[in-house]
Amino acid sequence: MIEAAVLTIGDELIRGEIVDTNSASIASCLQQIGIGVKKCLTVGDDTAEIAETLEQLIGSYRIIVASGGLGPTGDDITREAVARALGRELVYNEEAAAKIEKIFTRRNIKFTTNNFRQAYFPEGAEILNNERGTAPGFKCQQDNTSIYILPGVPDEMERMLAAEVLPDLQKLNSGIRPLLLARYQVIGLGEAELEDRIKKIIKDYSSVHFSFLPRGGVIEVKLTCSPEKENLLSRAEKEIERKLSSYIFGRGDATLTGKIGKMLKNTSRTIATAESITGGLLGKRLTDRAGSSEYFAGGVISYSGESKIKLLGVPRELLATRGAVDSEVAELMARGARELLAADIGLAVTGYAGPEAVGNNVGLVFGGLAVEGRQYSVRWNLTGDRKRIRWLTSQFAFNLVRKHLLEEIT
Amino acid sequence: MIEAAVLTIGDELIRGEIVDTNSASIASCLQQIGIGVKKCLTVGDDTAEIAETLEQLIGSYRIIVASGGLGPTGDDITREAVARALGRELVYNEEAAAKIEKIFTRRNIKFTTNNFRQAYFPEGAEILNNERGTAPGFKCQQDNTSIYILPGVPDEMERMLAAEVLPDLQKLNSGIRPLLLARYQVIGLGEAELEDRIKKIIKDYSSVHFSFLPRGGVIEVKLTCSPEKENLLSRAEKEIERKLSSYIFGRGDATLTGKIGKMLKNTSRTIATAESITGGLLGKRLTDRAGSSEYFAGGVISYSGESKIKLLGVPRELLATRGAVDSEVAELMARGARELLAADIGLAVTGYAGPEAVGNNVGLVFGGLAVEGRQYSVRWNLTGDRKRIRWLTSQFAFNLVRKHLLEEIT
Repeated sequence: MIEAAVLTIGDELIRGEIVDTNSASIASCLQQIGIGVKKCLTVGDDTAEIAETLEQLIGSYRIIVASGGLGPTGDDITREAVARALGRELVYNEEAAAKIEKIFTRRNIKFTTNNFRQAYFPEGAEILNNERGTAPGFKCQQDNTSIYILPGVPDEMERMLAAEVLPDLQKLNSGIRPLLLARYQVIGLGEAELEDRIKKIIKDYSSVHFSFLPRGGVIEVKLTCSPEKENLLSRAEKEIERKLSSYIFGRGDATLTGKIGKMLKNTSRTIATAESITGGLLGKRLTDRAGSSEYFAGGVISYSGESKIKLLGVPRELLATRGAVDSEVAELMARGARELLAADIGLAVTGYAGPEAVGNNVGLVFGGLAVEGRQYSVRWNLTGDRKRIRWLTSQFAFNLVRKHLLEEIT
Repeated sequence: MIEAAVLTIGDELIRGEIVDTNSASIASCLQQIGIGVKKCLTVGDDTAEIAETLEQLIGSYRIIVASGGLGPTGDDITREAVARALGRELVYNEEAAAKIEKIFTRRNIKFTTNNFRQAYFPEGAEILNNERGTAPGFKCQQDNTSIYILPGVPDEMERMLAAEVLPDLQKLNSGIRPLLLARYQVIGLGEAELEDRIKKIIKDYSSVHFSFLPRGGVIEVKLTCSPEKENLLSRAEKEIERKLSSYIFGRGDATLTGKIGKMLKNTSRTIATAESITGGLLGKRLTDRAGSSEYFAGGVISYSGESKIKLLGVPRELLATRGAVDSEVAELMARGARELLAADIGLAVTGYAGPEAVGNNVGLVFGGLAVEGRQYSVRWNLTGDRKRIRWLTSQFAFNLVRKHLLEEIT
């Protein structure tokens, strides 16, 4: 496997003012084409520090991908630092300058002489096109190391990485076949339960590497193996699919809201929500997806007892005797939302997110689902802080819908 | 300024499977007590790689804070790597072992011999208490470098950092007075507009450093200066406050939802929401805060036209002639939510989040606010992708409430 290093540059990063997401984006893209990142580094906007760090990396790694510090202001000194590390001069590139000026004219932004700084590159650099901003990136080759310098704005960086860097790296990497990979998204099983369930498969397929990545109620199960063992991997995949069956809700980057969105759309069904504990998170997550208006009829955020009574028709006596966190309340909320918004499916959640709760019941949550003529509820005991409990509630509520649709369809 | 390096450890990080938030948390905490992070590094769960990286850092930095790889499984080899880098043995600590066993017994979790791995530390290490998990951290001293090793789980790491590491570092740093700092949260001004408005202050106070950190519609204005110039800083603060006045919604870590929550509570007012474009985000953000039931009456997610008509009383003819993205529709939605949920204030948003929109109007959004006897609306032209437009809508909607309450109170 070709080894790479990632370098991110910016004072705001080493001061902890913003979280560096570029390193993970770059590492994940490289990983997918079979290039392994061995080390990520972050330094501030400091010419000497950047140059010194690059000098240490050049020669030790076949590939260096760096981002940040390509802007037009005096703080942006990555160009100078790279030139210093490579022992080359910065040279003015007329073509790049013309391109930058054109972008400014088109956007009707004032062009200052400062912006011409972005048209200087280390001698011999190949310019990388920036489709989403003014700062071009560049590539240099030195001592068997390919160095890619990208802008720091995540959006611009990601586009340049996909359009310019990855195709180039794939050429470099053409002799090497990437690792084979299969990813499953699993919900409804704990990590220990999951491992236990497939431990025989893990043992039988010793040349397949299994890993588990728990992420907010969902576990990603990842199988990797060398490209020579393709047959083995597909056999292992079949066994995993058989063993985990409907706990798997998708492959690759599948999401729960994507999955139920597709299922609702395909079956021409609509859904309405009634949210107490999540306060709008169910609706927010459903509508994160463009096109959700096709299946999301709308919702009620019934955070108060009064709104559960008035809008959703939960009887006042029931609330008074059982309280708001109750299985029957969840069912009636689901039914109420379904009727109020004239949807096929009503989905409701009510529970204690904490930090305080009646009877120390933080994490006690009921999910309710209503369809034509019937409704039912499920009880969940969730752990974590307020944020996590609300998130898990949304995950399990969406899974309730998924399971319902699976049963209805089959 | 004392210089520090941060090292995060984990295969999932260098593969880009998860974003490293620990580096930023650590850097930001150190920064606040006057310790400057010069470099952040990330390596995988590889004993040789970790040991080698630590060897390079020891001696070059006064402080090293590392996190990750302290768990009980075979992958967790940070203890071994640190021992190797320091040239020390790993020794078993009975007290730590007893503590770990106690946590397991209390939580009723099966204790395996693997868990005893967590009771081994490099000779001479001071143990750091983990209040939120089983993996203790530790501190070692070598060649004038203090090395802190923390767990990788962000929650556990942050607690250990605050409870064990920072107090210790403050002692180390006692001779040095940290930089003075003032932070303001500003909304309603663009970055250029903001800079322009205070450019004279920036010029007049050349020994105060001004920085601007735009974050999703809010700009943090940060003033820093050396501890000798306290008078100067407070004068600059006064001028900033006068010049930006009500564009400032808070100091330090103030948030918009925190601010309006407090204002609503203090004036005993309640709010109800009607969300089209945001699909639940307003409610979700209001209820992120514990205790929000005191002022949040609930909301309607009126994603469909029908729900705007049926639940909020927007006239069908108005929707038919003007469409859903309209100033009057926003006003009537706000009024409808206020009445439906019997709240003092109704807040509504309707707009085009994209990627597609009627008449290429992505980013056109109306906010509506209703109080007893009247309602009004504001038009925003927002830019960005779907996620950003929805987020900005929530920011500006909350700011609308803040401005309304400011006027009412004064």
